Amino acid sequence: MNHPPPPPHVQADAFLAEAAALLGVRGLTTDPERVDAWLTDWRGRYTGRALALASPASTAEVAALVKLCAAHGVPIVPQGGNSGMAGGATPDATGTAILLSLRRMDRIRHVDPATGQAVCEAGVILQSLHDAADAAGLRFPLTLGGKGSATIGGLIATNAGGTQVLRHGTMRAQVLGLEAVLASGEVLDLMTPLKKDNRGFDLKQLLIGSEGTLGIVTTACLRLLPAPIGRATAWVGLGGIVDARTLLRQMERALGEALEGFEVVPAHCLASVLAHQPTARAPLTEPHEWNALIECVSPSQDSAALRERLEAGLGTALEQGLIADAVIAANDTQAEAFWALRDGISAAERALGPAMQHDISVPVEKMPEFIIAAAPAIEAAFPGTRAVAFGHLGDGNVHFHVLAPEGAVRGVWEEADGKDVSARVYDLVTEWGGSISAEHGIGQMKVEELARLHDPVALALMAQVKAALDPDNLLNPGKLLLNPPAREAARLARTAAKA
Amino acid sequence: MNHPPPPPHVQADAFLAEAAALLGVRGLTTDPERVDAWLTDWRGRYTGRALALASPASTAEVAALVKLCAAHGVPIVPQGGNSGMAGGATPDATGTAILLSLRRMDRIRHVDPATGQAVCEAGVILQSLHDAADAAGLRFPLTLGGKGSATIGGLIATNAGGTQVLRHGTMRAQVLGLEAVLASGEVLDLMTPLKKDNRGFDLKQLLIGSEGTLGIVTTACLRLLPAPIGRATAWVGLGGIVDARTLLRQMERALGEALEGFEVVPAHCLASVLAHQPTARAPLTEPHEWNALIECVSPSQDSAALRERLEAGLGTALEQGLIADAVIAANDTQAEAFWALRDGISAAERALGPAMQHDISVPVEKMPEFIIAAAPAIEAAFPGTRAVAFGHLGDGNVHFHVLAPEGAVRGVWEEADGKDVSARVYDLVTEWGGSISAEHGIGQMKVEELARLHDPVALALMAQVKAALDPDNLLNPGKLLLNPPAREAARLARTAAKA
Repeated sequence: MNHPPPPPHVQADAFLAEAAALLGVRGLTTDPERVDAWLTDWRGRYTGRALALASPASTAEVAALVKLCAAHGVPIVPQGGNSGMAGGATPDATGTAILLSLRRMDRIRHVDPATGQAVCEAGVILQSLHDAADAAGLRFPLTLGGKGSATIGGLIATNAGGTQVLRHGTMRAQVLGLEAVLASGEVLDLMTPLKKDNRGFDLKQLLIGSEGTLGIVTTACLRLLPAPIGRATAWVGLGGIVDARTLLRQMERALGEALEGFEVVPAHCLASVLAHQPTARAPLTEPHEWNALIECVSPSQDSAALRERLEAGLGTALEQGLIADAVIAANDTQAEAFWALRDGISAAERALGPAMQHDISVPVEKMPEFIIAAAPAIEAAFPGTRAVAFGHLGDGNVHFHVLAPEGAVRGVWEEADGKDVSARVYDLVTEWGGSISAEHGIGQMKVEELARLHDPVALALMAQVKAALDPDNLLNPGKLLLNPPAREAARLARTAAKA
Repeated sequence: MNHPPPPPHVQADAFLAEAAALLGVRGLTTDPERVDAWLTDWRGRYTGRALALASPASTAEVAALVKLCAAHGVPIVPQGGNSGMAGGATPDATGTAILLSLRRMDRIRHVDPATGQAVCEAGVILQSLHDAADAAGLRFPLTLGGKGSATIGGLIATNAGGTQVLRHGTMRAQVLGLEAVLASGEVLDLMTPLKKDNRGFDLKQLLIGSEGTLGIVTTACLRLLPAPIGRATAWVGLGGIVDARTLLRQMERALGEALEGFEVVPAHCLASVLAHQPTARAPLTEPHEWNALIECVSPSQDSAALRERLEAGLGTALEQGLIADAVIAANDTQAEAFWALRDGISAAERALGPAMQHDISVPVEKMPEFIIAAAPAIEAAFPGTRAVAFGHLGDGNVHFHVLAPEGAVRGVWEEADGKDVSARVYDLVTEWGGSISAEHGIGQMKVEELARLHDPVALALMAQVKAALDPDNLLNPGKLLLNPPAREAARLARTAAKA
């Protein structure tokens, strides 16, 4: 005999009572004062609702909670430092999901200089790992602006990038082992770090970058490198972005493994930063169309030796007429000042007015031509806008910002013309064989654009994997991939557009 | 109205007629003289049967053939150079599958010094890629014994290793992009090499190492490195394997990125090679319990400079009493002679009589203790046997060979005691948190052992992925994962064993 299901609030009450019994007072709260701050992403673009905020203290508690959610059909939105750029950790507006914070799982279990490994729980903050590695004479070779709040679990879930990818790779390259709770509540233990392991599909790689849609990372074993001994940093003035690529290749040859960062900054961005930060100073006497910021680090050569190699390489480039001017930082303070110019771009551009920001990549060797073609195309299509590209040229990844026309109203322009601008930028990137998300992930921000523009074969494959591993669609639903009904609608729309 | 299906031979005839029309005379054959050689793996352990040998000439032909196979329910066994170590490219005995050779797809589409990239079809032989890279002043940084027959597609499908993994990683690290035909016959195009791309699950990583069970790799974009300028090779005598690990760590610090290989060879293996190869000479005057073969390569330092660094590092180790003796190769000929000793071990050990060979890994830092514990444990459990471990200490991967007792009959011992020996070795490896397949893959050789010993959560996850991507189980069935009925039986046996 079938009873009708109880009304939703009764179901939720039963679930919450069981969850509270499981997690205790510290582990579960519905108090708006403790929950609300985590329901909006840090850029303030997305706000959602949740049944409660769960903060389990251990993998076992995460697993038990996921089993409970599976039994009650409660969706789960995992969250680390809530510093993601794509709304991937913000629940939707229905309030049916539970927000699962990993922040209480913040132990660094060990840092081992002998093996060059660290074992961290998912909630460890990146800065804490940097500090722990540093104290052991080691270094964790990934860093980014949000290091004071971003967690190891979130960095793995989004395969985070940053400014050292050129040399050390993204988060994917740092993960030696991981542990994750699956949709069933089972624990997948891939923690033993093996340099070679060909026992079937690489499930670790499948979970990295899956944004909490296939499993919840609870612990990781990460690689550490010897602490650097030497450092050399240069600011270079160039006439064009094609020359910047030539310089990149020459620097790769001249500096080899020591070349760790190669960022480009157009004149407009530098001028914005200088105007925005009263104490900032231009590194070179004259302005240049383009600037390159070059960072070299070595675990074996000292700073003097590195500066000598960098100087020799830049000297050759100067003689060739490839670069117009260059200055090598005399010390760490000056190097940090150069980086502050680079890191200050986003804030300075924001101060100028509304803008659409795009984290995109194309093959490294095509990036200059892409910028040369795409910036004027966007400016022509949207009169009054200004398109600027800056960032990780060495990774083929720039932040492509489109500034609104003068007088555009913040909060209005973004939702109107801004959306069209973004669609056009993503169209262009796709035409060039690039990625609409180089390092920030898809989250909820780009999920519709991914459905519109990504290879249908790849999309279908991802949907198959998702359905197989999370058949009830409870793990971060609607992030990265549209929910099944929306996915089908998008597929039909794509087919219709082609016909 | 349902008609009964036609008898199997009639179905096969219809399929073969369509396949012949699709692929032409060069593309499909049932002639035993052209087929039979490919139905036995190169070690001669497995022999199967097949409906025919298909040799498509293009991705489009592979895709059309896979669609045809899907329509007729014909299983597909992909094959490259047929040099695999685990029987992964040999069909089963039923003769119901088609053998799909990728060897006709052997074009290197381009080798680009500017980007450091090569685009190869799946059938390109590794040696051909080495030659093409060399001719362009570049280098493909993966090599192994079977380089004269192993193909790029096979190397990707098995995530091959070799002797340069310490520095450059396995095949996984060399693949910038790939194209694969899925079970549906659809083509997944992931060829554009993006250094950063966070558009969802990393499907490329999922396919690498999947041994043809999730898709058939047809083309790849691979990374190339600058050609080396300098090289230095040393042969070192040591008193114990723990000292070899200490030496490895010291060499990593002293040589940094230049350290490319660190192999260990026990006294027994060296003596076997010297006895087996009449022209071979011991590099050092006295025998030592253990030997280390150290290879350094640099794209920027010349051989004299590298030899100096190597000599300084070994000098320190000698003063510390860490090593007993060492010799640095005076030239490439001498370096090759050192490597010939290492590469000659398998043949020399085989000449001594029957043996079971195991390609295993444990964490690098545990390998010495593993060898010290496991070798006597095996010798005690199987009186008269001798266990030797040699190979890639720097990767935590040794080839663990167990030689049969004197008088054991080749072809008999392996099937009787040999199987028990292997099961015990794999038990030990699993207890130590290691892998029963470090670099050779699972194929058909280890599929039962994987089902017996691997983490049930990981096995279940792999089975879910396989079922989602290849619902009819037509892509290399029974390899890597047991076929579904056998899988269920293994799961029940595991559960019963625990109860």
